Amino acid sequence: MLVGKVVGSLWATRKDEKLNGLKFLLVEKQLNETEVSPELVVAVDHVGAGVGEQVLITTGSSARISFENRTLPVDMVIVGIIDSVEYPKEE
Amino acid sequence: MLVGKVVGSLWATRKDEKLNGLKFLLVEKQLNETEVSPELVVAVDHVGAGVGEQVLITTGSSARISFENRTLPVDMVIVGIIDSVEYPKEE
Amino acid sequence: MLVGKVVGSLWATRKDEKLNGLKFLLVEKQLNETEVSPELVVAVDHVGAGVGEQVLITTGSSARISFENRTLPVDMVIVGIIDSVEYPKEE
Amino acid sequence: MLVGKVVGSLWATRKDEKLNGLKFLLVEKQLNETEVSPELVVAVDHVGAGVGEQVLITTGSSARISFENRTLPVDMVIVGIIDSVEYPKEE
Amino acid sequence: MLVGKVVGSLWATRKDEKLNGLKFLLVEKQLNETEVSPELVVAVDHVGAGVGEQVLITTGSSARISFENRTLPVDMVIVGIIDSVEYPKEE
Repeated sequence: MLVGKVVGSLWATRKDEKLNGLKFLLVEKQLNETEVSPELVVAVDHVGAGVGEQVLITTGSSARISFENRTLPVDMVIVGIIDSVEYPKEE
Repeated sequence: MLVGKVVGSLWATRKDEKLNGLKFLLVEKQLNETEVSPELVVAVDHVGAGVGEQVLITTGSSARISFENRTLPVDMVIVGIIDSVEYPKEE
Repeated sequence: MLVGKVVGSLWATRKDEKLNGLKFLLVEKQLNETEVSPELVVAVDHVGAGVGEQVLITTGSSARISFENRTLPVDMVIVGIIDSVEYPKEE
Repeated sequence: MLVGKVVGSLWATRKDEKLNGLKFLLVEKQLNETEVSPELVVAVDHVGAGVGEQVLITTGSSARISFENRTLPVDMVIVGIIDSVEYPKEE
Repeated sequence: MLVGKVVGSLWATRKDEKLNGLKFLLVEKQLNETEVSPELVVAVDHVGAGVGEQVLITTGSSARISFENRTLPVDMVIVGIIDSVEYPKEE
């Protein structure tokens, strides 16, 4: 799973019907305590996350099965809002 | 999921029968507001997208289950045409 | 999905029985109109592709379900032989 | 599968209920005997691993099926604590 | 699928019970005829491969279904021992 920070949102009116009602958030992948990936990804919110929050992301088929309807065409879901991360202390 | 821009198309007459009737679009992956990936990918259109449009892409098994027939041998599908993306403001 | 070019073949006598009779082709991943990935991959042929041909490749679980027997231990399949790719014109 | 070293932990109170009771560990991916990936990942512990231990990690749908409840929205699980790795001797 | 060379082994006594009896081999991914990836991976042997042998690897859910018990928490399996690879001739 990945640690990310919500940095924006995305809207798409013309989309697969099964995606109606879902919130698409733009997420910056945090590689470690100080580095982020240049690649922003889109994750479906499942826990009420907002811009600026640090989140836990699940990908692949494991992402879609977090929903009641397990056949949603989604491959990245926010499954938790992180309280704290205990990063390794500098040796 | 990924944000991409449709930049071209692809035709293949000799193909798995189950792929007949599908539209294959060439998509440029948008890493963030200013950078794109050098790697173009092929996504099956599911929402009527056209060249130049910004699109939302689902990958893996979650891609094929967006179709009625969930056993299509496809691993990348365009599931939305993006209206707008709210990218983070420069700090 | 990926665009690739068949560049060679591979033989393995001692293998999982379920793979018997399959043709393993060595494929060069084409990133865009001018660049290829240094990483060659192995894809199972499903449409009669040959060395030198440009092909469409599906990966993951969606690859194996292109076969009648959906439990083949394969994760990359050639599902089409490409006629033409309309790459974006240089701006 | 991947070889990693547990370097920290992560807590998330507001999360998908199905994740309740799981332990989220921060893991450094070990590329080979001397190099690690800069990208830390989050894996769910399934064998009682602790900080500093070298672990074996499974990813994707194969990760979640290591649990009794195969519909947990997790895509990375620690399935073993490594006793020893026999790395290739320098030629 | 991937071409790799077995370069070592790995042992883990404390592991998911479902992994008991499996042989974990350390594999060097061969990118092409002359280059290898710096990242070593762990694959479960399913065909009696040994150190030094060139092997064919399947990943993801397609890997675990090569076993009778399709719910093994493994995502990389050696499904063949390679006799020969016909790499493209230098142009």
